[in-house]
Amino acid sequence: MAVQLPSDFGFSLKVPEGDDRTRHVCDDCGWIHYVNPKIVVGAVCSYGDKILLCRRAIEPRLGFWTIPAGFLEEHETTEHGAIREAREEAGADIEIDALLGVYNIPRISQVQMIYRARLRSPEIAAGIESQEVALLDRADIPWNELAFPTVRWSLEHYREVAGARVFAARTNPPGETVSRSPLPARPGSAG
Amino acid sequence: MAVQLPSDFGFSLKVPEGDDRTRHVCDDCGWIHYVNPKIVVGAVCSYGDKILLCRRAIEPRLGFWTIPAGFLEEHETTEHGAIREAREEAGADIEIDALLGVYNIPRISQVQMIYRARLRSPEIAAGIESQEVALLDRADIPWNELAFPTVRWSLEHYREVAGARVFAARTNPPGETVSRSPLPARPGSAG
Repeated sequence: MAVQLPSDFGFSLKVPEGDDRTRHVCDDCGWIHYVNPKIVVGAVCSYGDKILLCRRAIEPRLGFWTIPAGFLEEHETTEHGAIREAREEAGADIEIDALLGVYNIPRISQVQMIYRARLRSPEIAAGIESQEVALLDRADIPWNELAFPTVRWSLEHYREVAGARVFAARTNPPGETVSRSPLPARPGSAG
Repeated sequence: MAVQLPSDFGFSLKVPEGDDRTRHVCDDCGWIHYVNPKIVVGAVCSYGDKILLCRRAIEPRLGFWTIPAGFLEEHETTEHGAIREAREEAGADIEIDALLGVYNIPRISQVQMIYRARLRSPEIAAGIESQEVALLDRADIPWNELAFPTVRWSLEHYREVAGARVFAARTNPPGETVSRSPLPARPGSAG
C-alpha cells in the first residue's frame, strides 16, 4: 500500500543531508519525495441498538462487511472525514460522539482512527463502494465475513465501552502490533 | 506544507475515473499520486513535576520551545514514533502512558497525536534539531516563547488531566478547527 514512484521518474534512493533515512530524491532538481503513513478514518455508527455495516463493492475484500471508513483527505479533520465516509459509503447522516480506537498497522503504514457515532436518522443507502448497507442487531453481525481485523476490533471495543461516556481510545489488541523501525541512538550516547 | 510535484513532471490535475476529487495523474502512465494528510507524533514528557521542553534549532520557529514531536515515519506505530522523537530531539528515554490529544490542523493537512509520557531517567541531551533541552517546573514554562499553538494546547491539556488515569484524548479547543472539505451529497438524495 506504500506509494511507489515508477522507476523511470529519475528518482534515486538517497539519504538527504541532515536526514537519517533513505528518501526518494529527484536526480534532476534534488526535490525530496517524502512518503509517510496514511490515516484511515471511520466510525462505528449506531441507531438505537443497531449497528451500521456496509458490504464492500470494491477490492480489497469485495463482498465482506465493514464499517464506513476510508482515507483522510487533504484539508479535512479526522471527525469530518469519518462523517464524509459514512455519507459516501452508507448514505448515513452521523454525529460523532467519541474517539473509540486508534489502530496502528505499521506493515502497511496505516493509522486508523475510528470514532463512536450516532445516526441522526435510520435512512441509509448504499454508495458506489457498497453492495448493500444494513442496520444490524449485535447478534446478527457477520463476524466471519468482516473485511479487516480492525473492523472486528472496533466492534469489540464498541461493546467494551458501551455505556461509558468517558473512556480512553482503544488500541491494537495485545500482540497485534509490530513496529519495524529501530530506535535511534540517544545523542551523546556511545551507541 | 502540502506535497507539490514540480510542474515539469508531466502530471496533470484530473479527476480519475470513479473518484470525485482532483488528483495528480501522470500524463504518460496514468499513475495517480495521492496526497494525504501527514501525522505528527509527540509527547508531553514528565520527570516528577518537571516537563521536558526543547528549544528548536531548525525552522520553522527556530529558537522557540516545543515538546519533542515530528512526522511519523513509514512502518512505525504512533507510540514508537513519539518515543523516537523524544530520543532524537532530547536524548530522552520515555515510556508512553496515554493518548493526551488529537489535534487537527486541516489548513496544513496535519493530524497531531500527542501522548502523555514519563521519562525513565532525568538524563537528557539536545539532538541536532534542538538548541537546548530542559526539564522545567510548570511555573518556568516560557508560555510566550512556545513554537506552535498545539504545544500550548498539549501543555494545558496535560494539566487538565493531571491525576486522571482514564480520560478521553483532548481535541482542538473550541473554535480552533475549520475543515475545508464540503460534505458530499448522500446517495439517492436530490442534492
